[in-house]
Amino acid sequence: MGESRAGKGKGGRRTTGRGGGLTYADSGVDIEAGDRFAESIQAGMRRTFGPRVLDRPGGFAGLVRLDYNESLFKHNYKDPVLVSCTDGVGTKVHLGIELKKYDTLGIDLVAMCVNDLVVESAEPLLFLDYIAVNRVDQGVLSELMKGIVRGCEIAGAALIGGETAEMNDLYKPGDFDLAGFSVGVVELSRATDATRVEPGDVVLGLASAGVHSNGFSLVRKIVEHAKLDLGRVYPELAGDNGAPETLGEVLLTPTRIYAPSIVRVLRAYKVKKVVTGMAHITGGGLAANLERALPEHVDAVIRADAWEVPGVFPFLQRHGDVSDEEMGRVFNMGVGYCLIVRPTFADSIAKRLEKQGERVYHLGKITKGKGRVRIKA
Amino acid sequence: MGESRAGKGKGGRRTTGRGGGLTYADSGVDIEAGDRFAESIQAGMRRTFGPRVLDRPGGFAGLVRLDYNESLFKHNYKDPVLVSCTDGVGTKVHLGIELKKYDTLGIDLVAMCVNDLVVESAEPLLFLDYIAVNRVDQGVLSELMKGIVRGCEIAGAALIGGETAEMNDLYKPGDFDLAGFSVGVVELSRATDATRVEPGDVVLGLASAGVHSNGFSLVRKIVEHAKLDLGRVYPELAGDNGAPETLGEVLLTPTRIYAPSIVRVLRAYKVKKVVTGMAHITGGGLAANLERALPEHVDAVIRADAWEVPGVFPFLQRHGDVSDEEMGRVFNMGVGYCLIVRPTFADSIAKRLEKQGERVYHLGKITKGKGRVRIKA
Repeated sequence: MGESRAGKGKGGRRTTGRGGGLTYADSGVDIEAGDRFAESIQAGMRRTFGPRVLDRPGGFAGLVRLDYNESLFKHNYKDPVLVSCTDGVGTKVHLGIELKKYDTLGIDLVAMCVNDLVVESAEPLLFLDYIAVNRVDQGVLSELMKGIVRGCEIAGAALIGGETAEMNDLYKPGDFDLAGFSVGVVELSRATDATRVEPGDVVLGLASAGVHSNGFSLVRKIVEHAKLDLGRVYPELAGDNGAPETLGEVLLTPTRIYAPSIVRVLRAYKVKKVVTGMAHITGGGLAANLERALPEHVDAVIRADAWEVPGVFPFLQRHGDVSDEEMGRVFNMGVGYCLIVRPTFADSIAKRLEKQGERVYHLGKITKGKGRVRIKA
Repeated sequence: MGESRAGKGKGGRRTTGRGGGLTYADSGVDIEAGDRFAESIQAGMRRTFGPRVLDRPGGFAGLVRLDYNESLFKHNYKDPVLVSCTDGVGTKVHLGIELKKYDTLGIDLVAMCVNDLVVESAEPLLFLDYIAVNRVDQGVLSELMKGIVRGCEIAGAALIGGETAEMNDLYKPGDFDLAGFSVGVVELSRATDATRVEPGDVVLGLASAGVHSNGFSLVRKIVEHAKLDLGRVYPELAGDNGAPETLGEVLLTPTRIYAPSIVRVLRAYKVKKVVTGMAHITGGGLAANLERALPEHVDAVIRADAWEVPGVFPFLQRHGDVSDEEMGRVFNMGVGYCLIVRPTFADSIAKRLEKQGERVYHLGKITKGKGRVRIKA
């Protein structure tokens, strides 16, 4: 249903009201508006395409070549494995709706998907979005698409399709939901393999940009409970992002897209395979997500003071009177992504990541254990 | 956000209420229920896996090998093209919600995606779902997953991941939305290429199973307008599906999944490439969708009496007083999928499709023209 954006181009789908009986337009679905939107975003989609995309307007699906030869980098897979995942932005959309700020939620959406892909050592290839709305509002949708296109550009993923579903019974006026899907590829022999993690390996953490896209049900509960003003600049939050920002702006800071930094590092150590495990820190927090990267016979021992906690977290904790444990289970607390690396390469990998603009923390190390993450004060 | 189902397995994500401040549970999100659901569907997902899936519990994304060797069929791609699309079930979900019948909407979801993939001559590889709910209800979600698993089994796609997002601010109690995402693969030289369609080619149509997943906003408007009873058996609908069914059951009949039949036919004519174009008939109807398969210099001339219109369409038309034109633009009217084939192979292809259980109509043929579909009485 809805307006598929996978290379729509021939148009021809039009519905006009006509006297007498019921029409599709009477049922509240404006096919023309959907078509106009689909056409308007073709240019944005094309910006993300790259040499692998087969640009075939009018098709029913998006097409991406797996292999292609570039002057510097030969992309030819011998035993390619497709890596795929889906995610949404969750109730962060609601904050965007309340603040009428829509242009960065798309970055969150892409980030939530591609950061999961690179955990498996995959190179992101393509992305598709699903946007469900009450009614096609060109202004809002264009802002949403702006973020999705920007996210895909950062991630190096081709935005080859999408779906805008107009469902006025399911969504209230002004409401919408966002889901994203991404596919990457990795050579089988180079896919992340948890059994390679060994005692002695070092755990590096990459700084998050703030709350990212998890825990927003709790965030909104705290805002409501403590009667916080999303439009106000709270001085204790000033340090997080340089220029003074309102609470709403701080909370809407988009999720950091780690994919390009990780892909670079993996390419640099193609032969040595010095990265043994990775984790994208989302719902569940650092411990629960890093545990997913561990085999049964090791622990990760993390120093609690190894990283800087952005001001937004103590701010939320104080106003919501939330326990430390709960904070650590719901939020990333300042670390958005982890790498487990061979100890002799830890410094050089950290330097490479810093060169890519990441802030890197030496969080701790891998010891013998039982597949647990232990955070020590 | 939410509970990713891409190989979740290590658990560890739990939130319990604790005295004092706010917790995630207070904000209405039940992580434990989400985790239980994620575990309960692992078995269903595994049923769809096949030899290509790398089954790695605990991972952040789903993994599918592109090449593998089977005794009968060697799957090795020289220049593989990934084909990908996304779709939803649209307001058909609302009918399921009203009737509290959830077990076939997942088939619709898979159908909407994989039928688009095979239009590009791709073999479906994998599928992921996004389910957004007000609150995790194991009963409802299990029924939804049952349909998704069944759809994936029919389509031959591995259900390697999914996302269940609990968003109680966005969705009313009992409401949910479904989105699906699928990836297939085709050898570049065998991808559907509209320029190959020529005058003289024959257009075959495959019977639909009824309304499929398009036009449900209008369907529901008609039901409301004419005060139709979804629980009643209307005698004029009896013929469509054998046993007597209520109007609700007739309308919820799942979308036919054409993927396995089409994949079989494409494999059978691997060298000759006798299928020159295809179309999945969704929103926009036969004309608008078949047009997407045509190059600029040909028309498709279709006989209006070439296929049987299922009783549900005249029933809806009469009760909604909908014009013929509008019906043809909103609904599939009985043809769910089209193939454009070389004339000398039309009969043998039709026979093969019938062997696969399809009902095949010789709809008409390709002539010189201007990229239009002309339906002639």
